[in-house]
Amino acid sequence: MTANSLVHSKLVCVALNDKAQLAALDATFHQDPYKKPPTQPVLYYKPRNTWSQEGAEVEWARDFDGNPVAAMVVGASLGVVIGKTTCRVSPQEALSHVGGYTVVADYSLPEQNYYRPDIKGKCLDTSAPVGPKIIPAAEIANPDALSISITVNGSVKSVFKLSQMQRSVAELISIISSIMTLQPGEVIAVGFAGNRVPVAKGDKVAASIEGIGTLTNTLGGA
Amino acid sequence: MTANSLVHSKLVCVALNDKAQLAALDATFHQDPYKKPPTQPVLYYKPRNTWSQEGAEVEWARDFDGNPVAAMVVGASLGVVIGKTTCRVSPQEALSHVGGYTVVADYSLPEQNYYRPDIKGKCLDTSAPVGPKIIPAAEIANPDALSISITVNGSVKSVFKLSQMQRSVAELISIISSIMTLQPGEVIAVGFAGNRVPVAKGDKVAASIEGIGTLTNTLGGA
Repeated sequence: MTANSLVHSKLVCVALNDKAQLAALDATFHQDPYKKPPTQPVLYYKPRNTWSQEGAEVEWARDFDGNPVAAMVVGASLGVVIGKTTCRVSPQEALSHVGGYTVVADYSLPEQNYYRPDIKGKCLDTSAPVGPKIIPAAEIANPDALSISITVNGSVKSVFKLSQMQRSVAELISIISSIMTLQPGEVIAVGFAGNRVPVAKGDKVAASIEGIGTLTNTLGGA
Repeated sequence: MTANSLVHSKLVCVALNDKAQLAALDATFHQDPYKKPPTQPVLYYKPRNTWSQEGAEVEWARDFDGNPVAAMVVGASLGVVIGKTTCRVSPQEALSHVGGYTVVADYSLPEQNYYRPDIKGKCLDTSAPVGPKIIPAAEIANPDALSISITVNGSVKSVFKLSQMQRSVAELISIISSIMTLQPGEVIAVGFAGNRVPVAKGDKVAASIEGIGTLTNTLGGA
């Protein structure tokens, strides 16, 4: 179902933007079929059926037979909310196109590999809460200095400093705006810790960025 | 830019649904990293910035430096327009969820490989015209019996019988609705001929399905 969402039109996520994850995968990248690491950002979409909001229940996924899946994981990212039409901007001017910042959580099936587009694992209904609100860009001096944490049932499971991103917020806006024109209200989830956090039915998950907010959701199916 | 479009909320395309293409790629599929052909439909999105309409100019793509790309290709598909909320329907009931049919053209960069999600090549601004109109589902007895042709500057370049699809329209709706809930107005491009058609700046391209319509667009940049 399409829940209320802060997102307008498009939620695009950047995969493989954690330097530590890229280093860990380096040997794999040098095997077939690529024989080298990605030279451009690896992007994926969370389509409208995934969009959700602060406080909403995230459905526990089911397999093709309708049975509950064995495992789900969560990642969290700074959400960059585009403020005006953005096409082929330079990194230097990129941040002036940001309207605000928020938190994006990405619930998914555990990733099998890094090759084929994982639509099945990433496009689960209600799997992309965004919020709780949008903080105006003017209030955030340096988005790359932020840090994002994930807490499950009160225990900290992941802390990711955005300074550990392979590409900065400004670089990503520049590159993505050269691939597609971005419109106001569209959201870019700029980077996730390489290690996604396992979650279980009924878990309460909080994704938090100081100065931006805490996005809290509960897994369904308990 | 976001042109007017018949699409509501989502345009999802099915790749690798041409039996002849699958047969031709069989040896490749058995190499690393998969060692077997895909077991589920391979999907990709055309996001909102790609949506366009009958008669519109399709922008000639530019590279990261802003220079015109050397080559573009086009494919065309039957577009299945969802008529009501569709979640985990069986193949038997799937067609009763279709509101109508239309034509989808997919302009892109030539595909480099079949592994990494090709966001850069598929998400070009204005690269997904849909139309010219939606034909009510009741008027189409058997969508899998249709045939789609692509004409460039008046010469037929591709003819694809939907009976050559690996998975039928009903099967695809069933499977995709098990991955994500589909909403009215969302469009599925169910399958393209494996060989995309090369196009040049200024070409006039017509994608046509008898009984559904002819979608005509011109490449820009001439």
